[in-house]
Formats: sequence, structure tokens, C-alpha cells
Amino acid sequence: MEENKDSYSAAMLVVGNEILSGRTQDTNTTWIAVQLVGMGVILRQARVVQDIEADIVQAVNELRKTVDYVFVTGGIGPTHDDITAESIARAFGVALELNPEAYDRLVKHYGRKMAMIPAGARLIDNPVSGAPGFQIGNVFVMAGVPRIMHAMFDDVKTRLHQGKPVLSNTITCSLPESLVAEPLADIQSRYPAVSIGSYPHFRAGLLGLSLVVRGSDPEPVSQATKDVIDMVARLGGKPNAVSLQTY
Amino acid sequence: MEENKDSYSAAMLVVGNEILSGRTQDTNTTWIAVQLVGMGVILRQARVVQDIEADIVQAVNELRKTVDYVFVTGGIGPTHDDITAESIARAFGVALELNPEAYDRLVKHYGRKMAMIPAGARLIDNPVSGAPGFQIGNVFVMAGVPRIMHAMFDDVKTRLHQGKPVLSNTITCSLPESLVAEPLADIQSRYPAVSIGSYPHFRAGLLGLSLVVRGSDPEPVSQATKDVIDMVARLGGKPNAVSLQTY
Repeated sequence: MEENKDSYSAAMLVVGNEILSGRTQDTNTTWIAVQLVGMGVILRQARVVQDIEADIVQAVNELRKTVDYVFVTGGIGPTHDDITAESIARAFGVALELNPEAYDRLVKHYGRKMAMIPAGARLIDNPVSGAPGFQIGNVFVMAGVPRIMHAMFDDVKTRLHQGKPVLSNTITCSLPESLVAEPLADIQSRYPAVSIGSYPHFRAGLLGLSLVVRGSDPEPVSQATKDVIDMVARLGGKPNAVSLQTY
Repeated sequence: MEENKDSYSAAMLVVGNEILSGRTQDTNTTWIAVQLVGMGVILRQARVVQDIEADIVQAVNELRKTVDYVFVTGGIGPTHDDITAESIARAFGVALELNPEAYDRLVKHYGRKMAMIPAGARLIDNPVSGAPGFQIGNVFVMAGVPRIMHAMFDDVKTRLHQGKPVLSNTITCSLPESLVAEPLADIQSRYPAVSIGSYPHFRAGLLGLSLVVRGSDPEPVSQATKDVIDMVARLGGKPNAVSLQTY
């Protein structure tokens, strides 16, 4: 991987039938996205796949070739439906083998299955429940339980290159999106270094609008933000600006 | 598509930088998943992509060939960052054209952009804010705002084949996952028609375990559930069973 880039790219792969059945709301993607934005790592894509080896293999192999980092959550427990480790080994064409270090950490509390790690992988610390995740190449495999995943990410983030943090300003108003469409496109065209998004939403039954200016250079982000605020005011909206944040 | 199947397959494609930046938590995937489970339609995969035409085109074209239905949410508004309609047209190799019916519905409130629909597409009703979604082939394109998407799905679901609803029972306990791993795998092997999942979770600071038995045939689902309850009790856990539901 090229070092000292302004930004790095990432993809998220969530493994688990429980997400796709609607039983569990995935929150890992959003949580990791927020961590990455502040580190100048851009999440380019997220996927959720079932606990099916062929599906995991295909997704991992597609994603790891197109982004700098792939974060995988879920499917590393001791039960029969936890097949992420063997699937990742298959994706990389390496053996799944008993990792002595993982075995030492696990032997008292868990079965042998959780110490089976793809050959050549490096463990990821799990200070919450002991059973480690692992890194192989640019793929980081963590637990699906959010509290455990968050703790593992403390170890993961020390291994990542960082780019320039992405800054963003949010301007909220209650103008209809159709009214701002043209002048907003005009502002966007004048600031190629920023990305301007328009997000309608319902709050308390009313349709509101968030205009979000994002970029890693503070100067154009500030200038485009000022232009958006002026535009909203000119159209008779009451712009409510949220100050610069990494988000 | 083959009709009268026991189950149909689906994929979800969420379009939007706001999800991948961590700004907005996607809830559309979970919501649609829950609707589908009751209709015998299995969500096999979900993807989130940025507002980039090439990314949308690639995802739509990969997904629509592998599942019966693709549900797309987001990116159909009037602003410059809404590029879903043109991307879907590109994916299908058809023109994006002014749809007279959409134009009639929209001309008073929105710009012309929201009436530009891929040639040959059929509109999807939007009783909340007027601007329609559209269906082309097996791809259903809806708004990203959850309240609007939910209303559009009322129209979409009348167009779907239904299979047998998926039933599930959840047994919760506080046994460690490693203890149930072997007997659970044994139960799974005896009931190939059901899918048994094991999901640890933290609640009130305690690690708990949900064992979920799913399938579309009531008989093996009930029998496997009974076996799981007996197994948990035999291991000294206090099984707390949640009755049969579609979920």
C-alpha cells in the first residue's frame, strides 16, 4: 500500500444471518465509519452477507482488492454457525490452523475452535472476553458483538495508516429540497474539493433538510459552508449551522 | 422468474454517502428484512454504496442477476447528489427519460429532475410526498427517508411473489456459548430443514445468549426448539423461550 496518502479507503463486511433476517440492527458499520472519518479513512462500501462460506469468500476477495482496508465483523464465535475464520482462510488460500498464542489465551474458557486461525494471521486483542480477532493482509476480522468489537478496534487502529481527517459542516433548514437544488448544484460546482450532500428527514412530523458540506481541506469547507448559509437565508430559510466537526 | 417457489431471494442496495460517513444510521435494511421474512422472501445480501454512478451500476448489475428481487433506497431526490435514477438507467442500458405520469404528479412541487425515470420503468406510488419511486425489471427503487420508503413498500409488496413465511423461535439463556457449541451443532445436524443461530449479547452489562431456530416448516422448527430448550436445561441454564413468530 502506498504510504502518506491524503486519504485511505475501506470497506466493511458484516457476516450474519441475524442482520439479514431483521432480527438484529447492525450498528457496527456506523460505529466504524465514525472512527474512520476522523482518521482520514473513507468507507467506500459496506456489505452484509449470510453465514455461507461461498458468500463470505466472494465478498472478501472482491473487497480486499479494491480498498486499502477491509473490516469484517461477526461469525468468530465457537458455535457451528461461526464460519468466518475458515471462510477467510479459504479466501486467502491458506490453511486454518491452531494458533498457539490464541490457544494459550483461550484454552481455559473456550473450545479449540476459537483458536483456529488462518495461517500467517496476526491476532487482534480482545480485552473484553479474551477470544482474539485476527488480521490477515489488509483484512481485519473482529467480533460481531458491538462492545467486544469496539474494544478490538483499539488494537486495530494502531495498525492503520491515517490520512487527513474529513471535516464536515451541517446546515439544517426547512426549505423544500427542490427549491435549493439549483443553487446548491451551483455551489457544488464551484468547490470541487468538497462534497455537498442534501438529506431530507422527518422530525416531529415535519420534513426538514440537512445540507452537509464535507472535505478534508478546512478552507474550501468553510467557504462552501458560508455560501450554503447565504443561499438558505436568501431563499427565506432560517439556516441553523452546526459547527465544524469530524464526522 | 420461477413462480410458486417455497422461498424467494432478495438483496438490498442502500445508496448514500451519509450512511458510509457514519452520519446516518441505516434502518431501511432491517425494516425491509422484517417485511420480507413474513412473505417468504429471504434477504441474502445487503450493500451500501457511495453516491458514485460506477459503484451503483456495478452493485445493481451484480445483485439483480443473483436474486429474485433487488430493493434500492436513496438518491432519488431533486439535488445534484441524487444520481440513483440515471445510474439504474445506465445499469439496464436504457435511456433516462421524462416520464409523463411522474411529471404530472410532480410538476407543481418539484423540479423536472425527479420526473426523469429509466425508459420502460413502472412508477411506485409515494402517498407521503408525491415523488414516485420506480420498478425496472426485478429492481425496486425507493426513497431513502424511512417514512417515505415504508409508504412506497405498500405498493411494492403487491408486486412480489410470496413464499412460505419464515418462522423463528428464540431461546435466551446465560450459558457461555462455548458450553452449548457441541450439543447445539448436534441438534443442527439432526434438523437440516431448520437453521440454528447462536448470538451472544451484552444486556445490562451481562453476557447473554440467544439461540434462534428458524425455518419455514412449523414441525421441525417446533421439534428443534424443544431440543434446544431441553439442552439448555440439561446444562443448568434457565431457558427462556420466546414463542413462535415470523421474524
